[in-house]
Amino acid sequence: MTQALPDFDDVKAAASRIASKAVHTPLLNHPALDERVGGRVFIKPEGLQRTGSFKFRGAFNALSQFTPEQRKAGVVAFSSGNHAQGIAEAARILQMPATIVMPTDAPEVKKQGVIARGAALKLYDRETESREEISEAIAAETGATVIPSYDHPHIMAGQGTCGLEIFETLAGLDVQADQLACCLGGGGLISGIGLAAKALSPKTALYGVEPDGFEDHKLSLQAGARLPSPRKSGSICDALLTPMPGELTFALNKKQLTDVAVVTDDEAMAAVRFAFETLKLVVEPGGAVALASILTGKVDAKDRTTVIVLTGGNIDPAVMAQAIRA
Amino acid sequence: MTQALPDFDDVKAAASRIASKAVHTPLLNHPALDERVGGRVFIKPEGLQRTGSFKFRGAFNALSQFTPEQRKAGVVAFSSGNHAQGIAEAARILQMPATIVMPTDAPEVKKQGVIARGAALKLYDRETESREEISEAIAAETGATVIPSYDHPHIMAGQGTCGLEIFETLAGLDVQADQLACCLGGGGLISGIGLAAKALSPKTALYGVEPDGFEDHKLSLQAGARLPSPRKSGSICDALLTPMPGELTFALNKKQLTDVAVVTDDEAMAAVRFAFETLKLVVEPGGAVALASILTGKVDAKDRTTVIVLTGGNIDPAVMAQAIRA
Repeated sequence: MTQALPDFDDVKAAASRIASKAVHTPLLNHPALDERVGGRVFIKPEGLQRTGSFKFRGAFNALSQFTPEQRKAGVVAFSSGNHAQGIAEAARILQMPATIVMPTDAPEVKKQGVIARGAALKLYDRETESREEISEAIAAETGATVIPSYDHPHIMAGQGTCGLEIFETLAGLDVQADQLACCLGGGGLISGIGLAAKALSPKTALYGVEPDGFEDHKLSLQAGARLPSPRKSGSICDALLTPMPGELTFALNKKQLTDVAVVTDDEAMAAVRFAFETLKLVVEPGGAVALASILTGKVDAKDRTTVIVLTGGNIDPAVMAQAIRA
Repeated sequence: MTQALPDFDDVKAAASRIASKAVHTPLLNHPALDERVGGRVFIKPEGLQRTGSFKFRGAFNALSQFTPEQRKAGVVAFSSGNHAQGIAEAARILQMPATIVMPTDAPEVKKQGVIARGAALKLYDRETESREEISEAIAAETGATVIPSYDHPHIMAGQGTCGLEIFETLAGLDVQADQLACCLGGGGLISGIGLAAKALSPKTALYGVEPDGFEDHKLSLQAGARLPSPRKSGSICDALLTPMPGELTFALNKKQLTDVAVVTDDEAMAAVRFAFETLKLVVEPGGAVALASILTGKVDAKDRTTVIVLTGGNIDPAVMAQAIRA
C-alpha cells in the first residue's frame, strides 16, 4: 500500500507524544566554530538524545501509536544501528517485544546497545542478504509489525520534532537561519525537518550531506527519480549507507531540499576530531558529515547563519581513537 | 593585602560582564544516567564553554575590569592548563599581552591552546619550582598584573556565573535541587557557585569532589583551617592538583560546603568513559569527578535531584583513548 505523506500537524502531534520520554536537546553555539567558518553556527547535538541519536524520536512516535494487539505481538526493525537502538529503547519503555535485524558489520557498540535493552538481535550480511526479506519473514511468523528506519510517516514525523525544536528555539532567540545542513541516509530526518522548516522558517535553505559513494539522494534529485547508491558498503559513515531514497522521504525531499553536498570519509573523520577537540562532543562519523560540510566549505557558512545537525554519537572506541590520533 | 570576599551582587555583575563573550551552557538531563543512579540528575557541561572549561568565565570577568594602564602591561597567570586557556582567550579578545606559567607535565593540548591564542608560555617544574615566584618575577619585570587561578574575588565571582545559570534554569523548570556536586581544586568555582546557591537555592547541599591524594579541602574543613594536600603530583586529574585551599575560597567554602567526597583516578577514568559512552560528552578526568561521585555512590543520588558540574573537556587524545579502551 502507498502510505500518506506526513505533514506539519503530524510533526506537532509527534512532539506531544514523545515529550515525556525524549530529550529536548539544546541548540548550541561555539565561538571557535563561528570563527573557523566566518559565520554564525547553531549546533543541534542529537548525540545527547536518549540512545545517542535522533532515532528515538521517530521510534517512540511510531511504537506509541500501536494498537493493543500490535503491542502484544511486538515490533521488527532493520537498521545499521541507531534506528535499532531507538526501536529497542522505545519497545523497552512500552514493554513490547522487539527483534532487530542488523548488518554483521554494524559497530559493536550498537549491537550491544540493542541486547542491553532486552531486544532480540538477528544479524545479516549487507552484501548478500536482504534485510527487508528477513524482517518480513520474522513478521509473518510472529505477527509483529515491521517499522522501517525511514520510509514511514510516523518515523518521518517523529524525526521532524528535531526540526520543530530547532526552529522554535531560533524563533525564541529572534534568529532566522539562512541554511540548515543535515546528514542524509534514507532521508527520514531531513524530510521531517523540512516539514518544520516549511512551516516555521520557509526562507531557510536545506542541505543534505551524504558520504562519498552513497550519494543516492544527490543522484536521485538530479535525475528527478529515485536511483540507487553507487556503493553498498565500505564507508566509515555506517549510519548513512542506505541503498536508495525512500519512496515517502524522496517525495518530500525532492520538494524541500535545496541541494546535497558529498563528503569523504577523511573529511567526516576530521569533523569527528574537531567535535572532540573543540566542541567537546562525541560524534560518530555519519553524524559528523554536516559539520564536515561547513568545515570544508562544501556548504558555505561564511557570513551566514547556519544550523548543523550532529545526528548521533554511537561511535566504537577504536574508531574514536583513530579519529583523534595525533 | 587581604582582598574582600565576593558576594552574590558580584556574581550578577560578572554575568553581565561576560554575557556577550561566554557561552550560556545548557543544563542537560539524560534518562540513562537517571536510571543508573536511581534519581534525577541535571548536568552542567562546562566543556561546552569557550576554551573547553568554566575557567573563561572568571578570566574574562577579571581581565575586563583592568584599567587602561593594566591592559597595556598585560596579564600573567599560572595554571595547570584550563585557567591558562581562559586567560589567554580573554586576553586575545581584549587585545592585551599575556604570559602563562604552566607545569611541564600539563597536557600537551592545553599548552598548544595557550600558544594558539597568542600568549607567551613559560614552563616550570611542579615538584621543585614555585609558580607564584616565577609569576611575580615576570610581573615585576614587565609591570603585568598577576591573576591567580582561583584565589581572587573577580575569578570567584566570574566562576559563580556557572551557578547563577544553573539555579536560574532550575527555577524556570520549577525544580529544586537537593544537592550539587562539583570538582574541587583551589575552590574558586564551588565558592562562586555557593554564592549563587545561597541566594537562589539555599536548601541545596553543596558537595566538593577531590581526587585521592589531593583532598586539601576535605582535610582543611575537618581541621577548620587551611592544610596542604598530601601529594604534589601524580594524579590523572591534572586540573585539580592544587597545593592548598585559597585564603578567599576557603573562607567561603568552610561556610558553604556540606561535605567533600574523594574519588580515585580509576573512578575518574570510569566516569570519563561513561560520559563518552552514554552522555556523548568529552570530559577530562578532573572534570569528571563529580560524575564519578554519583556513579560510585560517594555522593548518594538515589531518590534525589542532583546537579553535577562537568567542568572541562580538555583531555589529551592518548588519555581519552586509554579511558575508552574496551
